[in-house]
Amino acid sequence: MTRLLFAMPGQQALSQSLLLRTGWTAGNMILRQFPDGESYIRVLDDVRGRDVAILCQLHQPDSRVLPLLLLADTLRDLGAARVGLVAPYLAYMRQDKRFNEGEGISSHYFARLISQHLDWLLTVDPHLHRIHQLDEVYSIPALSLTAVQPIAEWIKQHINNPLVIGPDSESEQWAARVAEAAGCPWEVLEKQRFGDHDVQVSLPHVANYLDRTPVLVDDIISTGKTMIQAAQHLMNAGMANPVCIAVHGIFAQGALADMQGNGLRVVTSNSIADDSNQIDLAPLLADALVSFPG
Amino acid sequence: MTRLLFAMPGQQALSQSLLLRTGWTAGNMILRQFPDGESYIRVLDDVRGRDVAILCQLHQPDSRVLPLLLLADTLRDLGAARVGLVAPYLAYMRQDKRFNEGEGISSHYFARLISQHLDWLLTVDPHLHRIHQLDEVYSIPALSLTAVQPIAEWIKQHINNPLVIGPDSESEQWAARVAEAAGCPWEVLEKQRFGDHDVQVSLPHVANYLDRTPVLVDDIISTGKTMIQAAQHLMNAGMANPVCIAVHGIFAQGALADMQGNGLRVVTSNSIADDSNQIDLAPLLADALVSFPG
Repeated sequence: MTRLLFAMPGQQALSQSLLLRTGWTAGNMILRQFPDGESYIRVLDDVRGRDVAILCQLHQPDSRVLPLLLLADTLRDLGAARVGLVAPYLAYMRQDKRFNEGEGISSHYFARLISQHLDWLLTVDPHLHRIHQLDEVYSIPALSLTAVQPIAEWIKQHINNPLVIGPDSESEQWAARVAEAAGCPWEVLEKQRFGDHDVQVSLPHVANYLDRTPVLVDDIISTGKTMIQAAQHLMNAGMANPVCIAVHGIFAQGALADMQGNGLRVVTSNSIADDSNQIDLAPLLADALVSFPG
Repeated sequence: MTRLLFAMPGQQALSQSLLLRTGWTAGNMILRQFPDGESYIRVLDDVRGRDVAILCQLHQPDSRVLPLLLLADTLRDLGAARVGLVAPYLAYMRQDKRFNEGEGISSHYFARLISQHLDWLLTVDPHLHRIHQLDEVYSIPALSLTAVQPIAEWIKQHINNPLVIGPDSESEQWAARVAEAAGCPWEVLEKQRFGDHDVQVSLPHVANYLDRTPVLVDDIISTGKTMIQAAQHLMNAGMANPVCIAVHGIFAQGALADMQGNGLRVVTSNSIADDSNQIDLAPLLADALVSFPG
């Protein structure tokens, strides 16, 4: 029997693409909300003894997680053999230590919660910082893929004479790997502090790069402020309008419109469905699903 | 050391009232959302070895549950001895069996989830139907109180010559207990079916009650449609505009405005904070908290 993939709202396009590439079957369900806001779930397939997975977006996560857990519990209750989670964007990865006394370490609690309700996890470029491997916090088989190669391919196909730029020091490794795969040079913006609230960025060796198209790359765009500040510096220095690429376009509080209003071309992967999606993660995810979780 | 009560957003007024009556201490915390919608939690009290409780509204529950679980996990991680939940309105009580093949039994999954993260539960008039006792689904000490007495007191103080009316057969026991405590007569509306979609209600012995003020009582008002239909029948039969009382005013989709626009006086308890709150559950809850969970 083929495996079944249940797509949560917003991921139908990626789901279709995964089904075509993996030979998995679409899971059918009714998922809706009662007038009082409670979720109603009805699975329309016979899942007894079958391997199933849920494809779920996890940006703005607080309202998405309970329906996900209830669906996982329903599938297990109906007899599914294993219930996996394909979450191309994984939430709650940033609060990974107690920075101030009394803080909750939500990365750990969230990982435990997911591990209690699901049997395996597949994701793309989780925000790993102090947590180096997902298995430090997830007790289920958890595989993290990287979009470095698809991003590099997109750059090679669409950008003439690119310069890959990491907007801050955290993105250095990231920028280096993308540039290497795309066969182009890279730099990281340097921060200069002129006081508590006056931090400016600058591009080292900018005079060498004035003929190149600047391509800012990062893992996540949330408010877009880092990208906008970086882009303004580059444009002020005489470079062309930058292209901004991120794996995960969360776009809090109208960030995409802000960025576009500042003259930026914004490109994301389809980890979160959005008009800026141009990098398809389906080949990457489908390849992994052939052998994972085994 | 006194116990600490942490109030989730929306329950500050009820919290203040409980603190005054129980001698518990207010728990201090910062609970906010990052721009990407993830919850940030910081507990400002030393909770090591202490008994703590969280006061939480659970209507429109899907976005409220993850922050609740993360707060409970944080308190436990910080060393709290026990973490209880005071949820005057308890969500996910209605889907308590598999009515159709493939449905999730969300009552059971939700109870298991809460039982995994909290040590005890105190609630008021949960929607018990096929589940007769909370301990059939909750594996933690779970006490359910009833607002019958405070509702009856409100009726005695505010309504002259009342007739308590249950809007449907499910509310019969409920109406009987309120009327007995208020010392007044009661009836239950009868349904008459004139076809698949034409169901009308009628009040038995209506001619005996034309001088009385009709008081419709139910446990929950969600869309308000049941109450509005019942009230229209009573007004058409020549009775005064009804008073509609519910323990839990969920008021989905503008239901409160709908009901008021139909000439109804709407009265609820403060299980869910709202302008219609007139029945204070604090005395009931505070009495229980003196001895529960022991």
